[in-house]
Amino acid sequence: MSRILTVAGAQMGPIQRADTREATLARMIALLEQAATKGANLVVFPELAFTTFFPRWPMGRDDAELLGCFETAMPNPRVQPLFDRARALRLGFYVGYAELTPDGHRFNSAITVGPDGDILFKYRKIHLPGSDHVKAGQRYQQLEKMYFEYGDLGFPVARGPEAWGRPVLGMLVCNDRRWPEGWRCLGLQGVELVMVGYNSAAYDPNGGEGESAELRTFHSKLAAQSNAYMNATWAVAVAKAGNEDGAGLIGGSCIVDPNGLIVAEAATLGDEVIVAEVDLDACRQGKEKMFNFAQHRRPQHYRRIVDQVGATAPE
Amino acid sequence: MSRILTVAGAQMGPIQRADTREATLARMIALLEQAATKGANLVVFPELAFTTFFPRWPMGRDDAELLGCFETAMPNPRVQPLFDRARALRLGFYVGYAELTPDGHRFNSAITVGPDGDILFKYRKIHLPGSDHVKAGQRYQQLEKMYFEYGDLGFPVARGPEAWGRPVLGMLVCNDRRWPEGWRCLGLQGVELVMVGYNSAAYDPNGGEGESAELRTFHSKLAAQSNAYMNATWAVAVAKAGNEDGAGLIGGSCIVDPNGLIVAEAATLGDEVIVAEVDLDACRQGKEKMFNFAQHRRPQHYRRIVDQVGATAPE
Repeated sequence: MSRILTVAGAQMGPIQRADTREATLARMIALLEQAATKGANLVVFPELAFTTFFPRWPMGRDDAELLGCFETAMPNPRVQPLFDRARALRLGFYVGYAELTPDGHRFNSAITVGPDGDILFKYRKIHLPGSDHVKAGQRYQQLEKMYFEYGDLGFPVARGPEAWGRPVLGMLVCNDRRWPEGWRCLGLQGVELVMVGYNSAAYDPNGGEGESAELRTFHSKLAAQSNAYMNATWAVAVAKAGNEDGAGLIGGSCIVDPNGLIVAEAATLGDEVIVAEVDLDACRQGKEKMFNFAQHRRPQHYRRIVDQVGATAPE
Repeated sequence: MSRILTVAGAQMGPIQRADTREATLARMIALLEQAATKGANLVVFPELAFTTFFPRWPMGRDDAELLGCFETAMPNPRVQPLFDRARALRLGFYVGYAELTPDGHRFNSAITVGPDGDILFKYRKIHLPGSDHVKAGQRYQQLEKMYFEYGDLGFPVARGPEAWGRPVLGMLVCNDRRWPEGWRCLGLQGVELVMVGYNSAAYDPNGGEGESAELRTFHSKLAAQSNAYMNATWAVAVAKAGNEDGAGLIGGSCIVDPNGLIVAEAATLGDEVIVAEVDLDACRQGKEKMFNFAQHRRPQHYRRIVDQVGATAPE
């Protein structure tokens, strides 16, 4: 069984608040076509890929605009053309979207779809950043904690299909990639390929002080590279990038090998496909030696990680 | 209260098996003097700094040579000149050493000594790499699991003295730095400066295939940079480097800021002092925002980290 698959990251440039779903879907399908041309088996789209990063805008819970950002089923008629084209191309994909469940729960979710169009598994973002209330006097908000509930599915993995070499797949969403706990929960399930889409601010859009876009891009890559290395897994991290209605998002989409080395990365802040050949068996050396968890981990000393939430410094 | 202290990394070149303790101590004192000249308050020495990396040599448990590598008290007459000189210079230091307790236990330990010569705290290495038995036919061994017990002190922190701005200090030893669990246990105690000494192979000394010295040095820095960033702490990682009796050790000693950026790094594989001004309050931004653990961590989803040791992949 070949355990080499070709993975693409489909970085997306900005989606403006006024852009139509049709225009966005057409861009995603164009990216899918490009990835297919490059021989991809699996394409990774960003977090909340069908819309602008709407948590920056204050809206009422039942506003039509807000509700229009959520998917009530997956697939559904508004996204069906993407699913159809992917299946026709025999391409699987990861895509981030806002999920509204039949019983009214809202999550910042991602799914992975197989080459047959079936949904392999779903993940709901656990590490929600931002605020749970509108901050007065700020033009741009970050309202993820208000618009979404914390993910309730843990950190699941799933086996990909035979045609891909049955990789152990894991998903994260955006801010999750900065939290080694999530990666380790995937690593403890033998993950071989972690997919993560993101929307990360390039600067403070309200004009406050803050890190440069360059530093933030470094942080984004550092998190993907190190956690891939420490769990001996491949990782694909994919941005929505560029200027959305005056708020900047970093790019820096990259594909990282189990040594933590970047093997492909985006050069722009726009729609751009990056591709790498992913040899899943390249994870074995790390998993069997340096990061042989069974031999080297000492969980009896890790209790703080689950026994406390916040940091407590000594007197 | 000034919360800026000057930290030095005292990288050491190789210590050959035949080198005398007196010669090694003289080198360490020379490094201490250099660090003092550069204004250092605190000097970080490598793991097992008083000896060659002796776990590469098979020896009987009670061999005089092996016992001679262990310290039965700290300080003791064989290391007293280092303690005396440091106190005279008002310099604190971290040093790694092989510890033999009065009741016969053996650990790969580190202590941090304050500017008054008092031992602030002790750490015993938890992530022991290597083998618990001699591998037949190999000239060079890695016998840490045979020579040492697993550390039994958890991941302690301690406050440094007033003169240093009362930093929350943490220690790791060598391989620990590749395990995010240890860093997180320190981060959950508000750590502001993590000190870690190491001896890391530059290649397989027995001539097998393996990563290049360049890749191993990249891994070493990546682990320090990312874990410093993800815990919003300073880190000082210090090597014993170079060719010890035909076995190569990487250098790459570095001082890393809470953004994960390297602010000082060694240029050689020999005895070399690196220095940086460490503004402890530079940890605050990360600890209060991006890595505000109380706001963002979700330990109910991290149970695998303590509930299982090894990785278990799905069918």
